[in-house]
Formats: sequence, structure tokens, C-alpha cells
Amino acid sequence: MTTVVQKFGGSSVADAARIKHCATRVADAVRAGKRVAVVVSAMGDTTDDLIELAAQVSQAPDRREMDQLLATGEQVSIALLAMALQAMGVPAVSLTGVQCGIRTEGVHSRARITGIDNRRAVHEFERLRVPVVAGFQGVHAAADTGFVETMTLGRGGSDTTAVALAAALGADECEIYTDVDGVYTADPRVVEDARLLDRISYEEMMEAASQGARVMHLRAVELGRKSGVPIRVLHAMRHGPGTLICEASDSMETQQAVTTVALKADIGRLTIAGLPNRPGIQRDIFERIGAAGISVDDIIQNDADDGAGTCTIVFTVDQTDLAEVRQIVEAAVASIGQGTVHEDLGLSKVSAVGVGMQSQPGVAARMFKALADAGIRIANITTSEIKISCLVDEADGKSGLRAVHAAFNLGQAVVPSRSGAVSSSV
Amino acid sequence: MTTVVQKFGGSSVADAARIKHCATRVADAVRAGKRVAVVVSAMGDTTDDLIELAAQVSQAPDRREMDQLLATGEQVSIALLAMALQAMGVPAVSLTGVQCGIRTEGVHSRARITGIDNRRAVHEFERLRVPVVAGFQGVHAAADTGFVETMTLGRGGSDTTAVALAAALGADECEIYTDVDGVYTADPRVVEDARLLDRISYEEMMEAASQGARVMHLRAVELGRKSGVPIRVLHAMRHGPGTLICEASDSMETQQAVTTVALKADIGRLTIAGLPNRPGIQRDIFERIGAAGISVDDIIQNDADDGAGTCTIVFTVDQTDLAEVRQIVEAAVASIGQGTVHEDLGLSKVSAVGVGMQSQPGVAARMFKALADAGIRIANITTSEIKISCLVDEADGKSGLRAVHAAFNLGQAVVPSRSGAVSSSV
Repeated sequence: MTTVVQKFGGSSVADAARIKHCATRVADAVRAGKRVAVVVSAMGDTTDDLIELAAQVSQAPDRREMDQLLATGEQVSIALLAMALQAMGVPAVSLTGVQCGIRTEGVHSRARITGIDNRRAVHEFERLRVPVVAGFQGVHAAADTGFVETMTLGRGGSDTTAVALAAALGADECEIYTDVDGVYTADPRVVEDARLLDRISYEEMMEAASQGARVMHLRAVELGRKSGVPIRVLHAMRHGPGTLICEASDSMETQQAVTTVALKADIGRLTIAGLPNRPGIQRDIFERIGAAGISVDDIIQNDADDGAGTCTIVFTVDQTDLAEVRQIVEAAVASIGQGTVHEDLGLSKVSAVGVGMQSQPGVAARMFKALADAGIRIANITTSEIKISCLVDEADGKSGLRAVHAAFNLGQAVVPSRSGAVSSSV
Repeated sequence: MTTVVQKFGGSSVADAARIKHCATRVADAVRAGKRVAVVVSAMGDTTDDLIELAAQVSQAPDRREMDQLLATGEQVSIALLAMALQAMGVPAVSLTGVQCGIRTEGVHSRARITGIDNRRAVHEFERLRVPVVAGFQGVHAAADTGFVETMTLGRGGSDTTAVALAAALGADECEIYTDVDGVYTADPRVVEDARLLDRISYEEMMEAASQGARVMHLRAVELGRKSGVPIRVLHAMRHGPGTLICEASDSMETQQAVTTVALKADIGRLTIAGLPNRPGIQRDIFERIGAAGISVDDIIQNDADDGAGTCTIVFTVDQTDLAEVRQIVEAAVASIGQGTVHEDLGLSKVSAVGVGMQSQPGVAARMFKALADAGIRIANITTSEIKISCLVDEADGKSGLRAVHAAFNLGQAVVPSRSGAVSSSV
């Protein structure tokens, strides 16, 4: 018997009508003979509304109490979805994080799942009831007292719950229902002939997610890769095959150098020149930035050709963090006693992602040529095994994305559909 | 060290400003050196809003899922009140029903509390934190699987939680904050010179509650009586001594025949005449009414003086239930094969309540005289040890209440305050 976990996000359950629609998707799968468990997010703006309420009573609300508060959002949507299923004649039972045995670490507001005790969900399967599980939340029991605490999982939490539950239930697939049809070769709002992918590897999806693709959170994809759960991204309101995120197959690797291209905007760059390149100099700088809770994107370092043993460190951050990072870096440079700081605003990053580039030469050159032919200046280049990223002026971002997309023949008209490969393996 | 449980109802925590106000009441008690635990209801209309949402997805929502849904209301208010307390510098921790160890029977939507595991609340006391506990909810663990279910307690649930928690913590007093100053000798909106009572016995309060006084739920008072927890009813927004609900003292019993008078409106009466008075005839009728889930108020039966061995049964119900009850009774009479059914609408019940009437003769006569002097016809009389109730026309209800209130000298100007008696025993 096929087991699937279906996950519906906040916009998919934003009101009673949409909840009923989601219930029909669940009912369809049940009637098709599948064993289904469901994971749901909080309805629409519920989480924002609760955060606003908290702000009205406290300027700096405690994280534990925020978890207690926010966890109610999912508890409302699971109960309503379970009711909607029952009203359609599909036996269902809602389960909070604690009821579903979703155990987490003890860090409030961004707890990581440590394990799922699947007994309750299996019990409901045996009674032919659909478990409707609250996403984004879990429970932590204190080691000494055993007292239970409500925990939330932070960004991407509901996707992560769904993948973890799929793993715990040995599900054949984890279906993530969203407001897009799946994963594309590029953002279809920017690239007109972007093509829906039948499948993409975990690694590619992780790179694409960290380079600006907003379809799924990195964290859930990473968990899917670790646990080997195939994840399908689908549109909640439209029918379609969606995109399967799974292990890279040989055919995938050899077929094409690049699978998808991504664009990340609003990037700021900081250049620290003339630094003494002594051991520990990087730690001095980046420990301070980390302590401020700011995420650094790419870091590049080069020795300077000045005969004085200095080096240049260049790194990128979200543009909104740039002013704060600059202050931190200037303080660091002042205490080091040598170096100059320079900032650039208004940058975008164009990335090409594909496991195929590992076995195909000339991919980088092809990308650089595409940008050059479009008259686009490249400010920085960073690469990983399956990704090439070029920093460009914000004004050139979209045209750069289109140029790279075209250079690798990713468009609908050019490349034949790979649906044959998908249907043979699903 | 004095321990108190403070309970705030839904209207007292309806918005952020009121939640902050409640927090000041808690903070005042903490700063006065008391050990305080708090019980909170859902904010304002939250419960109604959730019921409306459920109605949008299901015509007959499952009780289990309703419990799961409604329990979120209190979870929101405890988190917000805990945050508000922390913002005032009072350490606090919110606890859901399951976290506070509130165990109940397994009957959804009207579960009774079977016990409270006080370890968590005591633990928080030891850490000098105020436990802020969700009212109206508890947890039931299945005997076979141990799986936990969220339960709600039904009407009066939060008051009941507060009294049960006070008992479990050995609290000196359970303070119920409401939108009235306490318990009066009569409803002050009807009787101008109604006087605030310093104290009232559990038994009197229970009779008054069941005869129409809306200050506190019968169920919570009954639990107070059983567990010996003194309950104080206070206004959430105004300062004042409130009314203490406690054991009847000797001075209370001898002081006055009547403590308070109550009015219950919208009563319907059904008269079944000419019934064969054979054993089991009453069961035949009232089992059917009970099976329909309808509560019957007073029942009176008399043998008829017709020499045929028939009897007349008269009983009262909420007027809104009358049509349904009449159908049920007519079906019962048809199957009995003898009897006639007659209904009266638009009745009110005036009741006088007082433990003193047990030791004072002539109380009933004094009440009947008061109604007669006011020109009011009495349709029915029912009594208990500490209560006399007279059914009157709805139009005579308020004037009847005033007449009885005056007849027993309950008004402010007439009877000296009993505050001396109170301060000596609190």
C-alpha cells in the first residue's frame, strides 16, 4: 500500500473554502487507495496576527511564550481540516506536535526535530483514519523533571515536519502543496520560457534554494536527502504532476550540465583590502559578524600582489544587514590596525545549478560567455561542485538570468520534455 | 505564605490593554508577598469565532476536534498574560492543561476534572514564577495506549479549573475576577437597593446559581464546597472586597432567614393531567426527555381527587425547549393511553435563598404575603431546605423580586453591613 504525507501551507488553508479544497485533495488520495497523513501550517496571516498581539503586551516577548502562542495557529488548522475531512466522509483525527510524538531539541523558536515516535500515527492508520498533524511544532521534555514544553521549529518548519513524518512512517513520497506548479528551470515570472522540471536532485534543490529559489526551504530538502524521502512539490489549487525532488540518477547527471538557474537580489558586498594575512585574521572578523546573528553569503579571499603580504577579503550579505556589518567590520579592522573597508550596494547574483556540470567541461565558460554577450559585467564569481554564481549589478540581474537560461537551452521550446524519464521511475 | 489562585474570565482579557490590567492585579498580589497561580479564559469572543469557523467547514463538527480547536483560545491568552507579567518584571510561565497536569474523564466537550498533578505548578512556585494556567481544558490519556487527548470542560469550565487548581495547591483562596463587584442580595439591575454580600455559603450560592443568579457556575461552587476552597468573587476592573463564598458559619445561619433573592425568566410549564398513577409512569415520561438532552427544572406531582386514581404532573423547562418537550410528552401520553397535556408560556420564578430559613419559622408565609401584597398570583411553589421558589407571570417577575427583597429587609439602607463578621474570619 502506498503511503504519502501531504503538506499544505498557510496560503492553502487561509479560509474555510480553501481548507475544504485541501480536504478534497486528501480525500482523492485516500479514495485512490493510498494511506495518507497530512501536515498543515497555520491559516494565512494567523502567525503574523499572533506576533502583532504579542507585540501589544510586550516589547521583547519571551521565546518560550512565543512558542506557546504561535503553536496555536497550527492547532486551529489541523482541527478544521480534520472536521472538513470528516464532513466529506473521510475519517480523520487531528494531532498536535505532542500528540504526534514530534520530539525536538530544547531551543525555543528554532528547535530541530530529534525524532518522531510514530506509534500514534501508525495507530490511526490501523484504524483507517487520516492523521492531520500540526506542522512547525514539537515537544521537548526536560531531562530532569520530564515536564513538557511546546517548541516551534522556525522558518521552513512545516515542510520539515512533513519530511520528518514521511521518514518516520516510511512513506513513499512527501507531497508539498504550494502556490506554484513545481520547480522550474528559472523563475517563470522572470524567464518567460521557463520550463517545469519533472525532477531535480536534492543537491540541486538545496543549491537553488540557497541561491534564491523560494519553492522549498533548504532545511526540509536537506532532511529529505538525509532520510531518502522523495519530495514532490505541487500546486495546491491546480492539478499537475509537480516536481519530484529525489536522488540524482545517472540519466539526470549526463543529460544536462545545468538543471535550473536562480536569481538572488538585494545583495550587499563588503571588501576589506590591505589586511595583514596572518593566521586567525578571518576568525577575528567573522566571529564578530556571527555573534551579531548575521548570515554571511559567499566569502572570497585573495592575497594581494603588493609584496607586503596583505590580502583582500570580499563577502556578500543581505543588503539590509550591510550597514550593521560595515560597523562591525570597521571596528574589527580598527583593532587589527590595518586595512580599508569598501562597500557595494545594489547587487544581484545569477546562479546556474546542475549535478551534470561535474562531468561536463566548459560549463563555466559557457555561462561567462552568455553574460558577456549580454553586455553584463561580472563583479564576483563563486562556485561549488554543482553551482556557478556570478555577482552582477542589480539592473542586470533579470537579463543575466534570461541569458544564462537561454545559453543552457533550458527553455520549453528548445529542450524536449523529460516526462518519460519521470514516469518510468515513479 | 498565603497562596491564591486568581481567575480572569474572557471579558477581562478581551484585548491587550485588559490583559495588561489583569497583569497588574497579579503583580499587586505577588508584590504583597503572596504566592499566586493564575487561570485564564479565552479572550473575549475567541471561542465564538472558533465555533463559527468550525461551522464553515462542517455542519456537525466532531466533539474531539471541537475540543482540539477551542483549547487554542486559552493557550493564546495564557501566553499573552505570561508575556505581560514578564514585561512588568514578574517572572511567569504559561501552562496548558496538559502541562499543568489537569487530568479529566474521557468525555469530549464536557469532561470532568478527575485530578490535578500539581508537580509542575509547585515547581514553578519554587522557582518564584507565576504559573499562568489555561482554564476550560485538560488532558485524558487512553488507558490502553497512553495517547493523550485534549479535553474541554464545558460551561463554567474555567471557574472549575481555578477552584480545582486552588484545591490541588492547598490555596488559601480562589479569586474569581468578573464584571460584577460580587454577589448581591438581588440583581442590582432589577433591585435598586440590592446590597453587596460580604459572604455567602456554598449551599446558598449553589441554590442561587441554579435559580438564575449568573455570577458563578454551580459546578465550580460545588467543587469549592467539596474541596473546602474559599472562593472570592471580585470585579476585574474595580477594586473592592468582593464576596466570599465559604462554609456557612453559625453567625450566618442565625443572623437572617434569607441571604439573597433570585429571578429566573423565560420559563415554560407543562401540565400532564389525568395520568394513571401506576409505578414507573414518571420514568416513562422523564427518560424520554432526558434522552433528548433537555434539562427539566422543578417537578411537582399530585394525586387527583377524582376517585379514579389519576395524578397530575407539572414541570418547568427553559421556554426554548417547550415545543420539543411537548412533542415528547404527547408521544409518551399516547403510548400510556391516558392523560392530557397543557402548556403555559411566559413564566418567571422568584426564589428566596438562605441557610437561615432552616432554623427560622414563617419564612415561606412571609414570602407569600409579600407577593400577595404586591397583587401577584403564584402559579407554583417549590421548596428545598434553604430555598423557596414561586412561579409567577413573567410580567410580575421583577416586581415580585423587589417585593420579596424588601420583605426580608435585604436592602442597603435597612440592614447593617456584615463586614465585621467577615474581617474577623478572613
